[in-house]
Amino acid sequence: MAAPSGADAPPPVPLTVRPRAAVFDVNETLSDTAALRARLHALGAPAERLHARFLPSVLRDGFARTFAGEPVPFRRVAQDVLRADLGARGVREHLDRDLEEAVEFALGAFSEFTVHPDVPAGVRRLRAAGVELTAFTNGSGAQCEELLERAGVRAEFSHVLSVEVPGVWKPHPGAYAHALSVGGRPAGEVLFVAVHPWDLDGAARAGFRTALVEREGRPYPSASRTPDLSATGVDALADLVLALP
Amino acid sequence: MAAPSGADAPPPVPLTVRPRAAVFDVNETLSDTAALRARLHALGAPAERLHARFLPSVLRDGFARTFAGEPVPFRRVAQDVLRADLGARGVREHLDRDLEEAVEFALGAFSEFTVHPDVPAGVRRLRAAGVELTAFTNGSGAQCEELLERAGVRAEFSHVLSVEVPGVWKPHPGAYAHALSVGGRPAGEVLFVAVHPWDLDGAARAGFRTALVEREGRPYPSASRTPDLSATGVDALADLVLALP
Repeated sequence: MAAPSGADAPPPVPLTVRPRAAVFDVNETLSDTAALRARLHALGAPAERLHARFLPSVLRDGFARTFAGEPVPFRRVAQDVLRADLGARGVREHLDRDLEEAVEFALGAFSEFTVHPDVPAGVRRLRAAGVELTAFTNGSGAQCEELLERAGVRAEFSHVLSVEVPGVWKPHPGAYAHALSVGGRPAGEVLFVAVHPWDLDGAARAGFRTALVEREGRPYPSASRTPDLSATGVDALADLVLALP
Repeated sequence: MAAPSGADAPPPVPLTVRPRAAVFDVNETLSDTAALRARLHALGAPAERLHARFLPSVLRDGFARTFAGEPVPFRRVAQDVLRADLGARGVREHLDRDLEEAVEFALGAFSEFTVHPDVPAGVRRLRAAGVELTAFTNGSGAQCEELLERAGVRAEFSHVLSVEVPGVWKPHPGAYAHALSVGGRPAGEVLFVAVHPWDLDGAARAGFRTALVEREGRPYPSASRTPDLSATGVDALADLVLALP
């Protein structure tokens, strides 16, 4: 197996010029998924445990099918993950309804997701300063549109993109290439913003500048490329970006 | 995005002849990872929650780096995942020791993992009937050797393989091609055994016959290729295999 890169990669050129555009990941970067935990709890399921493994499991299975060249839409992967976890022995017996109804009820949380409190002020400040904003999700483009509408920030974003179009999930290189082709700018002028190191690592490999949003103080993985910027929320990130000449 | 296959793929030819060989996934298929939960609990961490997301998170990050063509060894990915989850606000403050010591203590659980109680009888029965057995892990080959030694079943396995050699994690097609090249048999004569649908789906696409071991009664994902056999443990699976002519 090849030597890991990450910290071992050559040090990047420092970011000294304000990026012209920013691409935001959506799940957990913009969205707060607490409504899923609440719905799992309402069903009688072990909500903390299933909520904690939900997104990593969906990503694992979505990535797996990207290897096969036959991607599956996010909603169907999410449905399969929820059915497996809610249908497991020790969980299923405690649900307050039929398994399929429970899965649909849990999935309904996506229509309740809000953005994190630091998001609206942050994206408005960036946009007001002329930074062009794009949202780019492994999930459904329509669901992302709805999330941004509910939060009242849809108008700040020039593009809402989904991996449904390139047919490969991030962090496959083809996904980032799609975002770049839509944006029409060199990757080095664009800041990729995410809470997930795997996404920032993929974006850095595609040539983007990268910014980590880390709301819970998690240490950054040693094996992933170090982001150019790091902030505790999108509002604080906007301050860092706008401080650049 | 292409139409999902899974249940939509053409129905497979039924398995009517006993496979000559079997390849076993290792993490959770053979190994019982309860020792990790116990160590997380001993550290003062929310053990159920962190244990539930540990393996999906490691696989997510391992798959992500396989897309980049720069794989990272399982142990380093596991270390990064544990450091992020144990170092998060709300967890770190409750640890009974320094973060790096906590990460190493948690990782030490791998040296305590045992095999599930249904494994020894099952693999012995298969081997006694002339089925050639291979273990094939996304983890460390050395750690897999130790697991099988501790369980007293190392001698039943002709090969212990790790994705460290091909340099791509399962379910990348190159991983299954490696197992086939070592085994030297056509894929259609080999049964791939796993608890993880993403692994069985990848193996089926590589031409293997597949067997699901499902100890917790989880419903199988609609978007993954249906396994040829399904059993609640490796012992029960051996009965199904040996009933074939």
